[in-house]
Amino acid sequence: MNDPKSSLTQVRDRIDSIDRQIQELISERANWAREVARVKGEGLSAIDYYRPEREAHVLRMVVDRNHGPLSDTEMVRLFREIMSSCLAQEDPLKVGYLGPEGTFSEQAVRKHFGHAAYGLPLGSIEEVFQEVAAGHADFGVVPVENSGQGMIQITLDLFLTSEARICGEVELRVHQCLLSQRESLEGIKRVYGHAQSLQQCKTWLRVNLPSAECIAVSSNAEGARLARHTDDAAAIAGAAAGKVYGLKTVADAIEDRADNTTRFLVIGRSLFPPSGNDRTSLLITVNDKPGALYDVLSPFAKRNVSMNRIESRPAHTGKWQYAFFIDVSGHIDDESLQAALKDMGPVAEQVRVLGSYPVALP
Amino acid sequence: MNDPKSSLTQVRDRIDSIDRQIQELISERANWAREVARVKGEGLSAIDYYRPEREAHVLRMVVDRNHGPLSDTEMVRLFREIMSSCLAQEDPLKVGYLGPEGTFSEQAVRKHFGHAAYGLPLGSIEEVFQEVAAGHADFGVVPVENSGQGMIQITLDLFLTSEARICGEVELRVHQCLLSQRESLEGIKRVYGHAQSLQQCKTWLRVNLPSAECIAVSSNAEGARLARHTDDAAAIAGAAAGKVYGLKTVADAIEDRADNTTRFLVIGRSLFPPSGNDRTSLLITVNDKPGALYDVLSPFAKRNVSMNRIESRPAHTGKWQYAFFIDVSGHIDDESLQAALKDMGPVAEQVRVLGSYPVALP
Repeated sequence: MNDPKSSLTQVRDRIDSIDRQIQELISERANWAREVARVKGEGLSAIDYYRPEREAHVLRMVVDRNHGPLSDTEMVRLFREIMSSCLAQEDPLKVGYLGPEGTFSEQAVRKHFGHAAYGLPLGSIEEVFQEVAAGHADFGVVPVENSGQGMIQITLDLFLTSEARICGEVELRVHQCLLSQRESLEGIKRVYGHAQSLQQCKTWLRVNLPSAECIAVSSNAEGARLARHTDDAAAIAGAAAGKVYGLKTVADAIEDRADNTTRFLVIGRSLFPPSGNDRTSLLITVNDKPGALYDVLSPFAKRNVSMNRIESRPAHTGKWQYAFFIDVSGHIDDESLQAALKDMGPVAEQVRVLGSYPVALP
Repeated sequence: MNDPKSSLTQVRDRIDSIDRQIQELISERANWAREVARVKGEGLSAIDYYRPEREAHVLRMVVDRNHGPLSDTEMVRLFREIMSSCLAQEDPLKVGYLGPEGTFSEQAVRKHFGHAAYGLPLGSIEEVFQEVAAGHADFGVVPVENSGQGMIQITLDLFLTSEARICGEVELRVHQCLLSQRESLEGIKRVYGHAQSLQQCKTWLRVNLPSAECIAVSSNAEGARLARHTDDAAAIAGAAAGKVYGLKTVADAIEDRADNTTRFLVIGRSLFPPSGNDRTSLLITVNDKPGALYDVLSPFAKRNVSMNRIESRPAHTGKWQYAFFIDVSGHIDDESLQAALKDMGPVAEQVRVLGSYPVALP
């Protein structure tokens, strides 16, 4: 084993034998996936036997079992792809998203559905809702929240007028860095970045580079490319872009909110059973009278249902009405949640379950 | 096993146990990949121990062993991703390509390097060569041939003036379909498609839809979207787009050449050892005198080296010189190829080995 060459040969032989076993197991898994289709006997499209709660459960077990050396994220990614291939043996899932291809939204689609699904780039978030409703897309992926900038109103408003159900959530974490040819902030006169990224780092820029000019460009990658060719400029982009474009990271995690995450919702046409770690999104309309909000919220507290988010929107259905988007922990089948909704009955004008779905994976 | 529900539970238990084994094996594989890095002891970047000939060998074994139910393409894709994750434990590979993201070129990058590599979208093919030469990118992926339209001259010309080496080839196969809301050609007055796709189907369109207007749009997906909203239009796009956009396939494989493949080259800075099934690309310059081409080619025939492609270009280095791009079967280390090049010595002005690399996988 001391001769590097023979040692390398031995390692490669070992890897070959591992690959043989992995391949046999993947093939066996694909056969069992066909068996699931057969047992369910529902039809020939992936949508007929795709079960988000089951996928979430499988991936959670993957994370629990993982002891490296691959990160949880990489290991989950590989299992997503294996499941994606197994599922796509029948007609693959069709997933609509805000196009064009290559955007952040497409990344969310791939993170959630893998590369064997068909991606369907659409022109607007509204169109994603329409295509799902019309059945042209099996699912849609829409951005709903940016941790720096709050809820994305257009997405929330579309739930008011559509029948869409939420079947999942996807989180993409982005850390913004200040990248430059320079080693320090000194001498940086211009900062390039996508308008949204500049916005996300506004406070940091005002404090640390008050006199630099901020220039919005078509993408962060474009900004990094521009910054590479000048020595008095910097770009806002992810650390990966710094490595790719050979720029130094002058400052890390410069976004105003340290947990800069974009949250996407997976929308579909039906509700799914519990996965064991779920979240429920509710749309509750109340008449605008004193104490209405309190009356709506107190059943959750009473029944020990923990609330994760609340956002109010004027409901377009009638004057003086308000709609609350409320996310709570648990599945709609949970007794405590059922009881809370029952308590709420006399108070709320309308309670719609937008969906119960697995909590996002890393 | 006759109760569908308990039968489903049993199948899922079986899948869980398979997943457990797959995960254990992938982790073990990742550990051995680290061991390769340690044995080689060359450094900490993926480029230091990435070996295309080894990857090709591993994937060829995957194809040989594959007995379904997954297709060779899907199984190769999964192993690409597993290798990609294992390799990216160190600093991932940086791969330049003709951007923006979401293009055909990016698909070629992902097909060859998987999703754990960093993709570096660039503004031109020339820039891909430059970034590889400067070491900002470890590899580049450039289109070199479309089976319908022949060699891509700009890429060939860049080899004349650069030191780039060819380290691999990637083939993407595309079948074009005519998609429409209509069931037949009758009544189709307009055909949307990307300019290149319209070009690839020119003959078919002239014969079958002589009076239809051809309208170039930004992408085939865009064309399919437009066609969905009108009943006298059609779009040229892949079959997948038809499924995604809910259009009928009026005609299949309408490209003028039935084997419509785009071939990409992977460029880098060094030559790699044989993988067992290789191709060699040569750049041979000759003075323009009678019989020069024949003199250059006869050594290949004599030494039983089979030629796959030849393309002549005026060399920019001197007047009256011609450059031949010649692809032959085999690796530059093969005796027969060595002998042929030796024979050629007195005839050719210059012989440059652009690269010996594994033949593209499915």
